[in-house]
Amino acid sequence: MNGTVRFGVSINEDLLKKFDGVIAKKGYTNRSEAVRDLIREHLVEVEWERGDRETVGVITIVYDHDLRELTTRLTDLQHQHHPTIISTMHIHLDEHNCLEVLVARDKARKIKEVADKMIATRGVKYGRLTMATSGTDLL
Amino acid sequence: MNGTVRFGVSINEDLLKKFDGVIAKKGYTNRSEAVRDLIREHLVEVEWERGDRETVGVITIVYDHDLRELTTRLTDLQHQHHPTIISTMHIHLDEHNCLEVLVARDKARKIKEVADKMIATRGVKYGRLTMATSGTDLL
Amino acid sequence: MNGTVRFGVSINEDLLKKFDGVIAKKGYTNRSEAVRDLIREHLVEVEWERGDRETVGVITIVYDHDLRELTTRLTDLQHQHHPTIISTMHIHLDEHNCLEVLVARDKARKIKEVADKMIATRGVKYGRLTMATSGTDLL
Amino acid sequence: MNGTVRFGVSINEDLLKKFDGVIAKKGYTNRSEAVRDLIREHLVEVEWERGDRETVGVITIVYDHDLRELTTRLTDLQHQHHPTIISTMHIHLDEHNCLEVLVARDKARKIKEVADKMIATRGVKYGRLTMATSGTDLL
Repeated sequence: MNGTVRFGVSINEDLLKKFDGVIAKKGYTNRSEAVRDLIREHLVEVEWERGDRETVGVITIVYDHDLRELTTRLTDLQHQHHPTIISTMHIHLDEHNCLEVLVARDKARKIKEVADKMIATRGVKYGRLTMATSGTDLL
Repeated sequence: MNGTVRFGVSINEDLLKKFDGVIAKKGYTNRSEAVRDLIREHLVEVEWERGDRETVGVITIVYDHDLRELTTRLTDLQHQHHPTIISTMHIHLDEHNCLEVLVARDKARKIKEVADKMIATRGVKYGRLTMATSGTDLL
Repeated sequence: MNGTVRFGVSINEDLLKKFDGVIAKKGYTNRSEAVRDLIREHLVEVEWERGDRETVGVITIVYDHDLRELTTRLTDLQHQHHPTIISTMHIHLDEHNCLEVLVARDKARKIKEVADKMIATRGVKYGRLTMATSGTDLL
Repeated sequence: MNGTVRFGVSINEDLLKKFDGVIAKKGYTNRSEAVRDLIREHLVEVEWERGDRETVGVITIVYDHDLRELTTRLTDLQHQHHPTIISTMHIHLDEHNCLEVLVARDKARKIKEVADKMIATRGVKYGRLTMATSGTDLL
């Protein structure tokens, strides 16, 4: 890991004012931080497009836990993909609905595959894969 | 909650074959389930566009836990928005990086506001808000 | 091209009511049409993920036409990628800004490459690739 | 319109190297241009989220021109929303399919409404709204 460097961006004054206004509303107190965030976001997108690098994804599913069989099937799926799914959080939303958040760590392509299978499981009402990152490349 | 009904969809035969091929690859064993998933996804998108209904969101952030101050600031933010953030999972990705997954339950607009603040916090390398659902409206 | 078939979807009554409400607002007068649209959208997404099939994309760029050199460079780029870019529309937004919409027909991967180059050209203020379709597979 | 200013971004050296690698592949020859593009993209997203500012959108639809009635209905829709739709390009993709690209200029909310109506029209196989910009605010 190397040190911090500084680079200059030439930009139209009015455009910069607009950007400052928008990031202030989003809670940024520091312009460098906002630019770094745009850069990191862009790098994560590119990482997921390639598909062959190890990365981290978050799978969010909402389902009805009354369906006993479903819980078993989802647990089986997690075990079958054991090294991919590293951690799970389960939240009871109401008597019937639960939200499960699963953190997966593997190649992008592999994480997509597990997510597809979970989301396609009958009884899963809603599912989304959030493409995150291991952070190691995002200094 | 009402019972299950059945409706018919008229569709070109070849288009249906293509759809069946794609959903089979994604692991669906049942065409109704695939169509219901497309419908639910569409409803969740519309819910978030409106902004004023109670819903559930998942905030994913990646940060360096060596920055002591950052951990404190993020914890403070969570407490300030106590009724919004309902649960948190923390994963140590390596010596430096952690992934934190926060489940928020509130109006869409409110969840977006908390997510913006977290993601804008200096030291947070990556942040994403996943628009999920409480499931109550998604039977 | 084959004929029209009909398939049934079993769904919770309340979920269907919600879907009907949402699509009515969007101007659909026919539920089958709304479901077919969700199916086609899904197929187009999958087509673009693969990257190796011929498809159609729309590149939208906004730039300042006062930069003579830019116009020349963009025209050159179009000619270099002649079989990819099939048609162009140019709109004068104000004294300085123009919007150019370019229709490209090639493999998804190739269209992305041309779009990247155009969007990266200095002086192009804004650029977006819209992943459309040749329609041949979407009956 | 004001002049050009320059601001500094402090960033980790390795992160900057990665960003430089990615943007070089996308065809950027200038790092400032790549950062400005990320900033402009972010501003356009925020503009569309608000909905009440005049902006420019591109509506892309694919449909079968054999359906005479459809062409009439789409033309009627364009006339009804005359001040919104400012220009149209029509491309014959094959014997049956055409791609129509419509440029709309109005408040974001209004453009979304027209796009919804077009996309919902029976016979339109595929439709997408691309959120662009008038460029006036993107110096």
